[in-house]
Amino acid sequence: MSRSEHTPGVALRVGVLGCGNVGAAFVGLVDSGATAISLRTGIDLEVTRIAVRDLDRERPGLDRVAFEKRATTDSGAVVTDPQVDIVVELMGGIEPARSLILQALTSKKPVISGNKELLAAHAGELTAAAESAGVDLLFEASVAGAIPLVRLLRDSLAGEHIVRLTGIVNGTTNYMLTQMSEEGLGYNEALAQAQSLGYAEADPTADVEGYDAAAKAAILAGIAFDADVSSSDVHREGIVGIEASDIAFARRLGYEVKLLAVVERADAPGGEVAPAVGAPPCVAVRVHPAMVPKEHPLASVRGAFNAVFVEGDAAGELMVYGRGAGGRPTASAVLGDVIDAAHHLREQSRGRPARRRTPLLRPIADLRSQYYLTLDVADRPGVLAAVASVFGEHHVSIRSMEQTGLGVDARLLFITHMALEADVSATLQALRDLDTVERVGSVLRVIGSELA
Amino acid sequence: MSRSEHTPGVALRVGVLGCGNVGAAFVGLVDSGATAISLRTGIDLEVTRIAVRDLDRERPGLDRVAFEKRATTDSGAVVTDPQVDIVVELMGGIEPARSLILQALTSKKPVISGNKELLAAHAGELTAAAESAGVDLLFEASVAGAIPLVRLLRDSLAGEHIVRLTGIVNGTTNYMLTQMSEEGLGYNEALAQAQSLGYAEADPTADVEGYDAAAKAAILAGIAFDADVSSSDVHREGIVGIEASDIAFARRLGYEVKLLAVVERADAPGGEVAPAVGAPPCVAVRVHPAMVPKEHPLASVRGAFNAVFVEGDAAGELMVYGRGAGGRPTASAVLGDVIDAAHHLREQSRGRPARRRTPLLRPIADLRSQYYLTLDVADRPGVLAAVASVFGEHHVSIRSMEQTGLGVDARLLFITHMALEADVSATLQALRDLDTVERVGSVLRVIGSELA
Repeated sequence: MSRSEHTPGVALRVGVLGCGNVGAAFVGLVDSGATAISLRTGIDLEVTRIAVRDLDRERPGLDRVAFEKRATTDSGAVVTDPQVDIVVELMGGIEPARSLILQALTSKKPVISGNKELLAAHAGELTAAAESAGVDLLFEASVAGAIPLVRLLRDSLAGEHIVRLTGIVNGTTNYMLTQMSEEGLGYNEALAQAQSLGYAEADPTADVEGYDAAAKAAILAGIAFDADVSSSDVHREGIVGIEASDIAFARRLGYEVKLLAVVERADAPGGEVAPAVGAPPCVAVRVHPAMVPKEHPLASVRGAFNAVFVEGDAAGELMVYGRGAGGRPTASAVLGDVIDAAHHLREQSRGRPARRRTPLLRPIADLRSQYYLTLDVADRPGVLAAVASVFGEHHVSIRSMEQTGLGVDARLLFITHMALEADVSATLQALRDLDTVERVGSVLRVIGSELA
Repeated sequence: MSRSEHTPGVALRVGVLGCGNVGAAFVGLVDSGATAISLRTGIDLEVTRIAVRDLDRERPGLDRVAFEKRATTDSGAVVTDPQVDIVVELMGGIEPARSLILQALTSKKPVISGNKELLAAHAGELTAAAESAGVDLLFEASVAGAIPLVRLLRDSLAGEHIVRLTGIVNGTTNYMLTQMSEEGLGYNEALAQAQSLGYAEADPTADVEGYDAAAKAAILAGIAFDADVSSSDVHREGIVGIEASDIAFARRLGYEVKLLAVVERADAPGGEVAPAVGAPPCVAVRVHPAMVPKEHPLASVRGAFNAVFVEGDAAGELMVYGRGAGGRPTASAVLGDVIDAAHHLREQSRGRPARRRTPLLRPIADLRSQYYLTLDVADRPGVLAAVASVFGEHHVSIRSMEQTGLGVDARLLFITHMALEADVSATLQALRDLDTVERVGSVLRVIGSELA
């Protein structure tokens, strides 16, 4: 099948796979906005086919008759339909989404996907298929909803040496942490509130254990560093176990606690700071809670909002902020990509193809950071000396210490100077072996003070 | 002259007009980064010609010999040189920049410009010339330095019904206001500090009177609303006259004072909220200081940073933040545009052409806002009653009032409910006529509480 020819004034025909929140919002935006979109962009769009699992389900905001005329349960037929010029995949999951996208690309139909799970696992294969077919594969909506991160990293910063991305990319956990910080809620109360508002699922594992953020970190690493990174490459710690007292202590010192996705260039394993031009990129990718100084722009990202802070060699610090989820915000990102692909189709051109290489991944043990950690201890003379000597033996030096509580409630809170993750892990292990340490509590990295 | 043909692997040749801070940084980025740019983007770039006013001036960061080989004082010769495929205009000012750009476009050479003054005055003419020549005219660097605003509004939000942009687009005044807020400096101290750091010129008029912000507001209105708006269409108030006491009062109520550029869709003059599709856009464009609630993302934009908060119908709230000025950040934005234009040249395509219409401009008198204002008054019984009745006669209702100082220092501070600008202006005029009012002090609009 050859690339469809497009005549100005004749609408480009969009086939949509999946019609949940985002799909229905996208169809609604095109149905109601086609004239305005045409006036603004010169691009005429029409949604001609919609593949769904269940024809009878209610699609809020869509006219029932207009929906049924276009709906089918045969998603393969949407992809192969000669009346479909552009395929929008919003079904989620790995299969059949992956096979359908590959089939569309092979038929030289551009694909727009908002499928985070798929792109975090198979971006390399999919971008290679788009490259060899010579058509667009665009996926702005797959990470951070309406926030234009993909276009920022791919186009605006095309010539930039990107050093680091630090992002709040999970709205559920950011909502919970904001409530814990501002309202003094405990973890369980904050979770219950997020669930009652529909921000968190009944099983909140994907959010609170950092799986969702890790998938987004993998996608961001891929775009920022042209590196084929998948979710399983990402070091991942969630927010389970963070206590209201940790957040209160952080606030008192001038910090907010945030779940961060960090994607950064790392030194090559040999220790060269600047690897040779053309060498595979060496990157470190991780998700963990961290203490962020109040003056840092990420500290004021509240509630369910997302934001990503970008550090570039020439551009300096940039941040993009917005709604990271939700039907209409995400559909807006899909629409921006569809207009791009439609323009390219009409011009018989395409966006710059992505280049992907297998990166060297630096293990978390090599990370250097400051750390906050708490120890529940026996409240008797000599405990601090014993604890302090464990830190010292492992080359971790203490910046500040405070005791809260007395007797059975005695707790020590430490902030370290910059230390190697491997040394801190060894310290924690040795502390757990001390008689006088009852429990190692929260461990938070302290970041960003140098950036604010 | 026909559009140059480009062979992959053969460098696209860039001619640069103007080699000040931004120009020199751009040439440096290409000279030192060409290999990395090629690896990342597949685009090979080379700066072949550089037009300058003074061949002998020092160009920090550029190799003298390599500079001199490419330098000329004849900017016209750079544009017409068959060895130049893409023209980068960073000379500033209206002429000869305007004529050179038109000449380049007519020769079917894409143009990248960072010239705020020119684009705020002649964007309509220049985009029409690019459109009829069928080549790119890109100007990300003309507004807010490295912050990817143009690409956000033009591409990411291509299908979006944009409602309002609210921006901190002048780093000098934001630095001054931050120092006044955080360090308690007076206006003159803050200005002197900004001058000593090189943020403010010896003659700070363009910054403190809001001319610079107004030019950027005009450019933003043009992109967001496809509207041909020029600097002179922008209602403009600067920060001169703002006192440390105003900022301290604002802080006490939970606000920061910021100089804002506001670009918003307005009701059509007949009062229809949604004008017919295809009708000329009705927009209001203004620059003025305002009180911004601390929870609003713009309130935490500190120092010389810039940020623009975007409200879209489907996308919701977005914000982009970064360095709004400086050689290397701005050069990074130029480079992103050059890579776009080079890709289009190689594909024999171009970006979606801009569409421009003459908008209906709503006068500031139609604005509805809350207002903060101060009155120096005679400290005697009955004054408040006289003042309050003036507000009432003009349909401006008072939300809160506070007196500071006694005797000759007596000052009344008011915050109004939502009121019409025209009514507030009439109120201020009538207050000035009262015997008991010695002086009307600062007048600040109070914005954004509904957004935070």
